[in-house]
Amino acid sequence: MTNTNIQLTSTINEDNKLTLALENIEMPQPGADEVVIRIEAAPLNPSDLGVLFSAADMTTAIQSGTEESPVITADVPAQFMPSLKTRVGKAIAVGNEGAGTVVTAGSSPAAQALMGKTVAVIGGGTYRQYLCANVQSCLELKEGTTAKEGASSFVNPLTALAMVETMRAEGHKAIIHAAAASNLGQMLNRICIADGIDLINIVRKEEQETLLRDMGAKYIVNSSSESFIADLTAAIIETGATIAFDPIGGGELTSDILNCMEVAAARDMKEHSLYGSDTFKQVYIYGALNRGPITLNRNFGFAWAVNGFLLFNALGKLGTKTVMTMRKRVADEITTTFASKYTHEVSLAEILKLESIAGYSKQATGEKYLIKPQA
Amino acid sequence: MTNTNIQLTSTINEDNKLTLALENIEMPQPGADEVVIRIEAAPLNPSDLGVLFSAADMTTAIQSGTEESPVITADVPAQFMPSLKTRVGKAIAVGNEGAGTVVTAGSSPAAQALMGKTVAVIGGGTYRQYLCANVQSCLELKEGTTAKEGASSFVNPLTALAMVETMRAEGHKAIIHAAAASNLGQMLNRICIADGIDLINIVRKEEQETLLRDMGAKYIVNSSSESFIADLTAAIIETGATIAFDPIGGGELTSDILNCMEVAAARDMKEHSLYGSDTFKQVYIYGALNRGPITLNRNFGFAWAVNGFLLFNALGKLGTKTVMTMRKRVADEITTTFASKYTHEVSLAEILKLESIAGYSKQATGEKYLIKPQA
Repeated sequence: MTNTNIQLTSTINEDNKLTLALENIEMPQPGADEVVIRIEAAPLNPSDLGVLFSAADMTTAIQSGTEESPVITADVPAQFMPSLKTRVGKAIAVGNEGAGTVVTAGSSPAAQALMGKTVAVIGGGTYRQYLCANVQSCLELKEGTTAKEGASSFVNPLTALAMVETMRAEGHKAIIHAAAASNLGQMLNRICIADGIDLINIVRKEEQETLLRDMGAKYIVNSSSESFIADLTAAIIETGATIAFDPIGGGELTSDILNCMEVAAARDMKEHSLYGSDTFKQVYIYGALNRGPITLNRNFGFAWAVNGFLLFNALGKLGTKTVMTMRKRVADEITTTFASKYTHEVSLAEILKLESIAGYSKQATGEKYLIKPQA
Repeated sequence: MTNTNIQLTSTINEDNKLTLALENIEMPQPGADEVVIRIEAAPLNPSDLGVLFSAADMTTAIQSGTEESPVITADVPAQFMPSLKTRVGKAIAVGNEGAGTVVTAGSSPAAQALMGKTVAVIGGGTYRQYLCANVQSCLELKEGTTAKEGASSFVNPLTALAMVETMRAEGHKAIIHAAAASNLGQMLNRICIADGIDLINIVRKEEQETLLRDMGAKYIVNSSSESFIADLTAAIIETGATIAFDPIGGGELTSDILNCMEVAAARDMKEHSLYGSDTFKQVYIYGALNRGPITLNRNFGFAWAVNGFLLFNALGKLGTKTVMTMRKRVADEITTTFASKYTHEVSLAEILKLESIAGYSKQATGEKYLIKPQA
């Protein structure tokens, strides 16, 4: 173990400035139920970008500091400052998940059992070299799994599994997924193929259709196609999908999905009803790729719901037993069903360089960054 | 008992024409568990208008027939015909509820017990003189209750009670109600005052504020006021309301309600979260006074839901025991808590006159029509 423990922090100050910087913090001492993990790999997820940049206008970003320890500053538009008051003046540690080796363990048997093991970890600011975490936040990886393979064991795998478990718990039988060519979407595809669940993948580019088709996806509809509404309706009729997950939010896609579900449901109605079909139609919005207004053009009766969907709330609803089963499945299948692909590997310092920011802030489908804090 | 049994029907034919007419049907014979009710009073609810006019353009309405038996015809715009195919060519009986005297009863003890009684009834086309109904669809009114007093025992009273019971079942502690000066809104006010529940009434006119204030309402906010958002937020902070019922749907009111709830919830947050507050915020849309798009301007985090709300689905979720208690309360308090006020009383023939249609089709707050099929 070295004497450095570099971590990346994001700070917004009263002067409407965002500062991203590295700092050398103390080496942590674990409590009884805690372990210290040498973080060897951590993914840059969309949710991490939200913490990192917050409401700053990154077109104003300036790089200063040194080559080994760059500092980024950017302006936060004044109108966003009131909503950020709980984080002003605080150096926020960034990084939702990662993986590495347990180098120190607390006195409890659960902590001791992890000593020397490769574990994945959730929470706490993983963009650092050594992280102290409760054993509950750790997932022991199978012998032979590398930190890179296990770095994304929580956010995407558990979200994809939570979608399938939510479908089951709420009595639906097939799923619609929007922005389906994402890393998460690819995982959901593999789960649904393995579990024999019909999944309708909504994409917006031909190459995304090809990607998913090559992975074995059966139902793929392209929202850029002129026949999108007809194609989606036909797929819903064939699969009986009445639940959808949409990371976009803004725009009319959620509305289109509900209307197509209703057209499919109304086909079987013998009697006209003012209130539409009895078939309950559910869309969960789990992201905000489009922050604009969500427009619902209501021709879908009264049996419907649109909900926000957040992983930790969803896990709470599913209950501990289901969640433990989900976690075990992730550990067992981390190199297959739940494998993540990274297009870029960067050090903590490289994350704070303008050319890296220009790359990862695009959130392009198919591009994914892995941070290696020990590099 | 006379030999006539006049009923009002609404028919859409292949020629894109709506026809409203009276017809003399056979006097019904009750089965074992059924009773025949002489309908003496039936309200014209917004949902009845939907069945009556369907998608017809009532500005094209023409009156023909006789003074005693008028006939109304109107054009149905061609684009709506495909969605109406399950009702084309069928004479639909109109009228969701009503009240009257049981004049014939089936052989079962439950049916016999209602003989000669004044009952309220739900379903089956109450805009007629004699209706055969299952005893389950009947609510025996207390001795001395008139048919006029009991005519609106189901739709508004059970909807208002279902809102309160849904609030309780889903763990909320105060309610927001939009378009709150309606007959239903006034009932909800009386229930909430009686049960000690905080209710925030959203209205859009000063005279509606006055009306509700005079009824003892404590929280009234006017959506036409410049300080609406601030007023609503203040009322939410004071009451802790996290559930709302909105009969309007189209426009931005649902969104405004969610955003005000979130501002109220976020006040107490110690730490900044990208995902907004943990406070779950629920809006139920139970009508379609505005059929335009629902626009959600999402600054309310991820813990939220917007659902369609339909009385019969809501009763199903609440369960038989709760519903039986609700029905008993309606019968007990039909002249107080659940009293309806009618501004117009009309015969079946009068409903089919152009001057009446011009009046009741406006759905003006505070105006309500009562049909007297025996007049």
